[in-house]
Amino acid sequence: MSIHCEIMPFITSLHVSVCSLSLKDFKLELQMGKWQQEISWLLFVFFSSDIEISRAQSPKAVDVLAKEIGLLTDEIEIYGQTKAKVRLSLLERLKDQPDGKYVLVAGITPTPLGEGKSTVTIGLVQALTAHLNINSFACLRQPSQGPTFGVKGGAAGGGYAQVIPMEEFNLHLTGDIHAITAANNLLAAAIDARILHENTQSDKALYNRLVPVVNGVREFSAIQLARLRRLGINKTDPGTLTEEEISKFARLDIDPSTITWQRVVDTNDRFLRKITVGQANTEKGFVRQAQFDIAVASEIMAILALTTSLQDMKERLGKMVVANDKKGEPVTAEDLGVTGALAVLMKDAIKPTLMQTLEGTPVFVHAGPFANIAHGNSSVLADKIALKLVGEKGFVVTEAGFGADIGMEKFFNIKCRASGLVPSVVVLVATVRALKMHGGGPNVTAGAPLKKEYTEENLQLVADGCCNLQKQIQITQLFGVPVVVALNVFKTDSPAEVDLVCEIAKQSGAFDAVPCNHWSAGGRGAVKLAQAVEKAANQKNSFKYLYNLELPIVEKIRIIAQKVYGAQDIELSPAAQSQVDRYTRQGFGNLPICMAKTHLSLSHQPERKGVPTGFILPISDVRASIGAGFIYPLVGTMSTMPGLPTRPCFYDIDLDPVTEQVKGLF
Amino acid sequence: MSIHCEIMPFITSLHVSVCSLSLKDFKLELQMGKWQQEISWLLFVFFSSDIEISRAQSPKAVDVLAKEIGLLTDEIEIYGQTKAKVRLSLLERLKDQPDGKYVLVAGITPTPLGEGKSTVTIGLVQALTAHLNINSFACLRQPSQGPTFGVKGGAAGGGYAQVIPMEEFNLHLTGDIHAITAANNLLAAAIDARILHENTQSDKALYNRLVPVVNGVREFSAIQLARLRRLGINKTDPGTLTEEEISKFARLDIDPSTITWQRVVDTNDRFLRKITVGQANTEKGFVRQAQFDIAVASEIMAILALTTSLQDMKERLGKMVVANDKKGEPVTAEDLGVTGALAVLMKDAIKPTLMQTLEGTPVFVHAGPFANIAHGNSSVLADKIALKLVGEKGFVVTEAGFGADIGMEKFFNIKCRASGLVPSVVVLVATVRALKMHGGGPNVTAGAPLKKEYTEENLQLVADGCCNLQKQIQITQLFGVPVVVALNVFKTDSPAEVDLVCEIAKQSGAFDAVPCNHWSAGGRGAVKLAQAVEKAANQKNSFKYLYNLELPIVEKIRIIAQKVYGAQDIELSPAAQSQVDRYTRQGFGNLPICMAKTHLSLSHQPERKGVPTGFILPISDVRASIGAGFIYPLVGTMSTMPGLPTRPCFYDIDLDPVTEQVKGLF
Repeated sequence: MSIHCEIMPFITSLHVSVCSLSLKDFKLELQMGKWQQEISWLLFVFFSSDIEISRAQSPKAVDVLAKEIGLLTDEIEIYGQTKAKVRLSLLERLKDQPDGKYVLVAGITPTPLGEGKSTVTIGLVQALTAHLNINSFACLRQPSQGPTFGVKGGAAGGGYAQVIPMEEFNLHLTGDIHAITAANNLLAAAIDARILHENTQSDKALYNRLVPVVNGVREFSAIQLARLRRLGINKTDPGTLTEEEISKFARLDIDPSTITWQRVVDTNDRFLRKITVGQANTEKGFVRQAQFDIAVASEIMAILALTTSLQDMKERLGKMVVANDKKGEPVTAEDLGVTGALAVLMKDAIKPTLMQTLEGTPVFVHAGPFANIAHGNSSVLADKIALKLVGEKGFVVTEAGFGADIGMEKFFNIKCRASGLVPSVVVLVATVRALKMHGGGPNVTAGAPLKKEYTEENLQLVADGCCNLQKQIQITQLFGVPVVVALNVFKTDSPAEVDLVCEIAKQSGAFDAVPCNHWSAGGRGAVKLAQAVEKAANQKNSFKYLYNLELPIVEKIRIIAQKVYGAQDIELSPAAQSQVDRYTRQGFGNLPICMAKTHLSLSHQPERKGVPTGFILPISDVRASIGAGFIYPLVGTMSTMPGLPTRPCFYDIDLDPVTEQVKGLF
Repeated sequence: MSIHCEIMPFITSLHVSVCSLSLKDFKLELQMGKWQQEISWLLFVFFSSDIEISRAQSPKAVDVLAKEIGLLTDEIEIYGQTKAKVRLSLLERLKDQPDGKYVLVAGITPTPLGEGKSTVTIGLVQALTAHLNINSFACLRQPSQGPTFGVKGGAAGGGYAQVIPMEEFNLHLTGDIHAITAANNLLAAAIDARILHENTQSDKALYNRLVPVVNGVREFSAIQLARLRRLGINKTDPGTLTEEEISKFARLDIDPSTITWQRVVDTNDRFLRKITVGQANTEKGFVRQAQFDIAVASEIMAILALTTSLQDMKERLGKMVVANDKKGEPVTAEDLGVTGALAVLMKDAIKPTLMQTLEGTPVFVHAGPFANIAHGNSSVLADKIALKLVGEKGFVVTEAGFGADIGMEKFFNIKCRASGLVPSVVVLVATVRALKMHGGGPNVTAGAPLKKEYTEENLQLVADGCCNLQKQIQITQLFGVPVVVALNVFKTDSPAEVDLVCEIAKQSGAFDAVPCNHWSAGGRGAVKLAQAVEKAANQKNSFKYLYNLELPIVEKIRIIAQKVYGAQDIELSPAAQSQVDRYTRQGFGNLPICMAKTHLSLSHQPERKGVPTGFILPISDVRASIGAGFIYPLVGTMSTMPGLPTRPCFYDIDLDPVTEQVKGLF
């Protein structure tokens, strides 16, 4: 092991408790005693927005942070003062270094408001690093810009458990989503243009254009030679192909009705959900119906999240199936000759971005695939690099989208399969609010004020709702990993309610259950959680996948539906069955399954809270992301393009042209 | 003047002549004598692609470059090893520093292959800095990714007059075009969503959603208060508006048939030229025909190129007119409440990106608006900052799109008006190839081999074609700026042809005319040009605009058509005339004019080469970019979305997953 492989304890230069934050605009504080400081802090927390808290703390320079965590100068590419990309060469340098502990933060079935998995993730690493002196790293997803300007706002955590500067996190970051958009749309343009050119040219004209004479020489490009080999044409001289071979080579013969590759934008643009393209005269009548998805729904985002190297990414990009030809055979990005260009567009996006929490703990932000039509987890590469950087005794905390029934199941069966990594602990986030909803409380709706059941003590609702927590604990146990319940405490939760949840959680098989106050107190508020997680990580771990890949597609779907969701059985529509048959015939039957199901219920019906039973899970259609490497059954209709409401978030967003400060992001 | 205002001579650490380039893969060279080196270099130049030449030279670290040119540490934001954004605060620090000389590179009417304005720009600054020891800076446009993967390839210059690393220049750079795409499309989504929400809600419901009760409080956002003031409603309490005021405030009442704001992608996607949007059930039948343009055609790109500060950019973004309401009044981005969000998305894009030439000369890459529906020049801010950095005796060389009749005319009448800067010299780029075409030579087509007229000496064709050069010189003289002709020499040009062009150019009023060999010899090949430019910059300069802004729109169009293009007159279609009337009535009559005309002829007919006369210029339509600040008459139809050919550039583009090197970009 070279000297560079030694892992030093992270020197986090911002081991601040909340009260010592430099609240620049709160000058009174300096003249006050301890007690008065507490008041001023409480006032600040109470009346401050997330962005004000973010701005009150100056992040350390990212090159300083990189040095603290043991990165070499030539292993980082700095983007401004607070962001850096980390090169994959690090994995080679540290390959003999044992991995740290790997912690997944998942959640119970949430309300539409979310229950705080991101803040728990950030609070936990703040507690581990700054309060328990254990190296730790948070690995988060990059948020889509769509919701930032639409309904939801940003995704940098909140309160005193945030990634800073939150505006950098929530805006362009280091351009990864933009790179995905560019790559995705180049492929989309290539598909339609190719169909047009094939339909308007003879075999010979097509061939002459595809393999032109340049400076007197006529030759195949590397990607064309690869296509010839796939077609079984073992020739390298363009002049020697027979007419039949020319036709086979030059015509992809795409069936337009089978195109599954959609264009994307990273904007909530509902009018692009269904469109007709090709209506200009120049496209000669080749119109067809198509759609735009939000950029993070692109298969390329799922690939970015699952890839393990540049070589692997390039192979996955080439394997992406975009349509079938008229004989029913898959047509890939490689067939279109665009693999290399896609890899070039993605060459920087593959490097994780380093940022920091409000308390200076290192954070990787990398990839953010949709949590229904894709697997909803941040990248394998960020986790792998972080596990090397923290050292054997350190912790890497990563997050799964939605509830444990969806995000965690996919994390284990899809992401861990791709990475080969074994998680040490699952942290299951619960809130009294969500449990009351599962216990029969009234509807919780984004934008509307909470009903009094949620703001006043109601032990019966809490007790009744804990069935959902219990079920999610049981789901975790299917995978053989210890689970710690983190109760994300709100100021309206009563001590009795908090105690009740923790008690039931422990009775239900959780290794421990602890209340957390990281939102209002930063790492200090998650110290007990950190201690519980540290203990749980030393427990016996008998991690296993839920199903064998070799099982038939339908069988794998049934296992997830019955064992995880609690369904009585599944029911495939004729369309779904026909897709299953097609994928099986095309040789894609051994891929893992990525269920596209609502996250608002364990069942397919969002209004059924608690633990629904006796339901038949309907599979309306089955699709595939062959490059990412999974089959995704649709349970009902899934929107892949959010919309803008009457009053989008952007009404409150502004830029001060003098200070250059961003206002109104949250 | 503070100590920071002193300008030191640039210490360019790469004062290389071509033969001393570190051609890593060409190991023979080290063992050779001078003569053999020359051979090895000639072989290298002859057989190397632009990207191989680019890669053979290691760029210096951008922080070293920044220091060399006098930037302070906190004035740059580094993006990787070879790119940095420069903060606008520099303009305040150096405000008392006199500007350097300002040189515009324009061209004669080009062939479809382009005549080398970018390479001349780069060769000239290489010669000035490395060979004449004069501080200099090149200011270039950021290329669109569309053509890079489509037909044209990259735009980093070529041969030994390149910006390096060329793959960084040609790909995502520092994300400015992606930021423009995001901002443009957020506005587009806001327009359609607003129409839908207005059409499906009562005044009261709309108002309640636009001004909701949040935590028991109901108040207008800052941008809503600004709208109330524009409407003449001087109230701040949402509860006090009358029903009529509520309706006026809540309804923009956009007439969908008047929407001029289009969505954009930075991809050559011809199937998006004409589309129908809103066909999903969720959009309730509000379908309409729309289109996507290539991202660089966005008005936001034109604004980026013309803006002078963050405050100015924000104001321009707010003023953008996206449609008319049903009464015929303009509806702006500000009316939609999105100004602040657009400014936030563009807050980093406003900072120019610093790169370097193959010989280490500093380059700003910033903005790249379309050269027909917009003005086609790089940014005012990059030029202004560079003019301060080079010092009073230094030179800033910038480029105009297309021929001088279009790019230069817009540079003077639009860009110089926005900046207040006065150019010292115009360099007019000509090639023997283009002159032969103007003299009656056969068609020149991209992709097809050149006819023998272009590869063999033909003095008659050259002499006949010089009329176009003469005319472009005369156009330059209209603006009172000295003009130096740069003849970009190809290996097939004969000495007699070269002499003939230079002779005619000088007789036609050029201050000087010199052959240039920067493509094959770098700065060394442009030393004579640099000397001529330096002398010309000391000439009397009587710069003036071509027209007064106060003239009626039609009069301004006529002046450009007659004085610049040589048209007999202009003829407006009824649609064009009605738009002129509308813009005049709306108070936009005093804006400068941005002609959208083919660049392949001085006239509107691309096939008419040389100096066409006696034509009537037809104006088919007139549009406006109010935020950018110009009216753009359409002379014929202008495509704002390129397409992919049968065999796009991407067939040759690849990424080596081991070395991470990009192949096939050119």
